[in-house]
Amino acid sequence: MKAVLILSGGMDSTTLLYDLIRQGHEVHAVTFDYNQRHRKEIASATAICKKLQVPQKVIDLSVLNDLAPSCLTRDGWEVPEGNYADENMKQTVVPNRNMVFLSLAAAFAIGIRADQLFYGAHAGDHTIYPDCRPAFVSAMTTAFHLCDWSDLVLEVPYLYLTKGDIVRKGLTLGVDYSLTWTCYKGGEKACGVCGSCDERLAAFLDAGATDPLEYEAK
Amino acid sequence: MKAVLILSGGMDSTTLLYDLIRQGHEVHAVTFDYNQRHRKEIASATAICKKLQVPQKVIDLSVLNDLAPSCLTRDGWEVPEGNYADENMKQTVVPNRNMVFLSLAAAFAIGIRADQLFYGAHAGDHTIYPDCRPAFVSAMTTAFHLCDWSDLVLEVPYLYLTKGDIVRKGLTLGVDYSLTWTCYKGGEKACGVCGSCDERLAAFLDAGATDPLEYEAK
Repeated sequence: MKAVLILSGGMDSTTLLYDLIRQGHEVHAVTFDYNQRHRKEIASATAICKKLQVPQKVIDLSVLNDLAPSCLTRDGWEVPEGNYADENMKQTVVPNRNMVFLSLAAAFAIGIRADQLFYGAHAGDHTIYPDCRPAFVSAMTTAFHLCDWSDLVLEVPYLYLTKGDIVRKGLTLGVDYSLTWTCYKGGEKACGVCGSCDERLAAFLDAGATDPLEYEAK
Repeated sequence: MKAVLILSGGMDSTTLLYDLIRQGHEVHAVTFDYNQRHRKEIASATAICKKLQVPQKVIDLSVLNDLAPSCLTRDGWEVPEGNYADENMKQTVVPNRNMVFLSLAAAFAIGIRADQLFYGAHAGDHTIYPDCRPAFVSAMTTAFHLCDWSDLVLEVPYLYLTKGDIVRKGLTLGVDYSLTWTCYKGGEKACGVCGSCDERLAAFLDAGATDPLEYEAK
């Protein structure tokens, strides 16, 4: 089966990439460049595709930054520190980001006649990001069945997994987490204190494993 | 109520713009530039906004042309002539175009805190464009309820109107159809023979009215 995967360069979509390759899918990765402050994740996604010999399409989506400002894309807006589930993490919501990503990835998938479109939303995202909730995914699944004359199936296999579950799965799949990027700040090393780093470190702790990434503060 | 309208510069969305203004909505127009061969419609949309003093956001979506080729965007691909309902009009489908338009317009709408997003799909589109079908619109309506923490309502009021119905309605609203653009070819005047011109002329005939637009061949 030919599949398109939205690959951010983070832990979840990278684990899903290894998972899909193991399952025998012919995977085409799509990565979005929306002037995110943490653009290092784009280089991570490219390095991962190179390592796994997966074709990658990088899509310029700087228009999203113009349409829908967020602290993830705007200089001068501070990325909040602390717990990922905190109310202030809602500042990191780029309005309707996932529907935009999904719709463009679907246009690409239809163009290359792929059967499935995968994305790596997981249970931990639901409280912060409205467009990672199961009900949203369900509505989009229906929309995908109908958006073209041929059928495009939306698959979100980690929707009910925690990030700890994903790390556990990734370690059995041999995922090289040193290549993945999670931090929302734009530094050389991961900051270790933003909500996103906090969630990553908690996931490794939950899985009883050590994160191979270097941190500024740990 | 603050509303965002996807305004192509064609008859349907222009009629809807007049309709919404008459109903007292505060309308913000969004127009997509995707390197369409019939880019004259963008200038039409801008002229209409200027005439009606409606703020317009033109969104650069040239990336869609790169992702999903269609005869509407590619030089050297012929725009089919003949009846709009013909099988060959499916060559004019830009894969997943409406979901892409809707998702970006929604990101803009959420950013300016609009309550509603309007688009002008109508009954005549259903046989050619899968993403104009009522079931697709229904799935997207659900997705819009869920894509953000605040509620964004998708409104497609012409979904069951024919293009003739829309012209009849527009004439009562005083729509200046000489400003609208429909032809899929890129000429100075409308060609009068492509599927899109054919459908427009049939709509005026159905409404018992005369199209004020100049045509090459009629």
